[in-house]
Amino acid sequence: MNEKLKPKDVLIETASRLFRLRGYCGVGLNDIIEESGIPKGSLYYYFPEGKEQLAIEAIIHTKKLVMEEIRTVFDGISDPIDAFQAHVYELSKVFGEGGNPVGSPIGTIAGEKHSTSEPIRMACESAFRDWQSIYTEKFLEGNYTEQQSTNLAIVLHALIEGGILLALTMKSGKPLEAIAEQIPLLLIKK
Amino acid sequence: MNEKLKPKDVLIETASRLFRLRGYCGVGLNDIIEESGIPKGSLYYYFPEGKEQLAIEAIIHTKKLVMEEIRTVFDGISDPIDAFQAHVYELSKVFGEGGNPVGSPIGTIAGEKHSTSEPIRMACESAFRDWQSIYTEKFLEGNYTEQQSTNLAIVLHALIEGGILLALTMKSGKPLEAIAEQIPLLLIKK
Repeated sequence: MNEKLKPKDVLIETASRLFRLRGYCGVGLNDIIEESGIPKGSLYYYFPEGKEQLAIEAIIHTKKLVMEEIRTVFDGISDPIDAFQAHVYELSKVFGEGGNPVGSPIGTIAGEKHSTSEPIRMACESAFRDWQSIYTEKFLEGNYTEQQSTNLAIVLHALIEGGILLALTMKSGKPLEAIAEQIPLLLIKK
Repeated sequence: MNEKLKPKDVLIETASRLFRLRGYCGVGLNDIIEESGIPKGSLYYYFPEGKEQLAIEAIIHTKKLVMEEIRTVFDGISDPIDAFQAHVYELSKVFGEGGNPVGSPIGTIAGEKHSTSEPIRMACESAFRDWQSIYTEKFLEGNYTEQQSTNLAIVLHALIEGGILLALTMKSGKPLEAIAEQIPLLLIKK
């Protein structure tokens, strides 16, 4: 248990980490209680609606975390090609050999719950839209048209979601490296 | 229960469908028994090692199904750009409005189990490699170099996995349409 965080935040942080690694259904509330060291009563006090409510908070937490990670890489790199290459190379290190792969940010939960929990699906959609907004903004800064910027943001996001899935499944950073190398072609201005 | 199939095949087909829709952990053996109409005893007769064994057979089944789907689209389209665009537009129809989205083929299971079941992870990796082989072959036929063909196959596969995830989460075929539109740029020969 991280002593610096409030119990509610510890629960959210622990849930986020476990959901990333094992998906929504693969994590029980008891796992979260055990890993966090927070008593069961507190979990139900902060999240009276239970696992679904905690999952939505975890998705919001992960969304913000990923937004910070993207912004940290993007800051100071004005060229979109360089910025996206840096972003994907950074991911290839996290998910590659010697990295510390922590699972797909929210892709697994989205895949599991899109048809069985509308509140979770909507939280995932909101995260996807927010990430894509940062991407769109970067393209607009690089003088791509509005239409191109929106479409390329979707394409880059799909590439990154798929690349993370391939990296996790193949236990290798190579799929993300291959993606980073192709980015300049994809981002040629029409 | 489909009367034309053998019980073992009905179980595999039912399990494949449910795993695609709700992931590995979201489906219990009882769901498979109920949906398939096959008695519990038969399930344990054909799959004495239980759910993990059935999941691996389901992954192999889905792998073959997807390979047939890709080959059906690719046959008769010799240009890789046209072939991949047709493939992704086809997916945009399945996953878009009025389509019949059946979940990610095996992306969700891969996301859930990559760190907790090595046999399932390996079955997913094998499916991914086989799909990528068809893609690689298509590029080689289009006179891309071996290196380019292998790398582009990975990139296209990541795009498609990510595009399916986005389509399911956003309940829209638009992410896959945006991807199809960008394919010509990505496949410019260096």
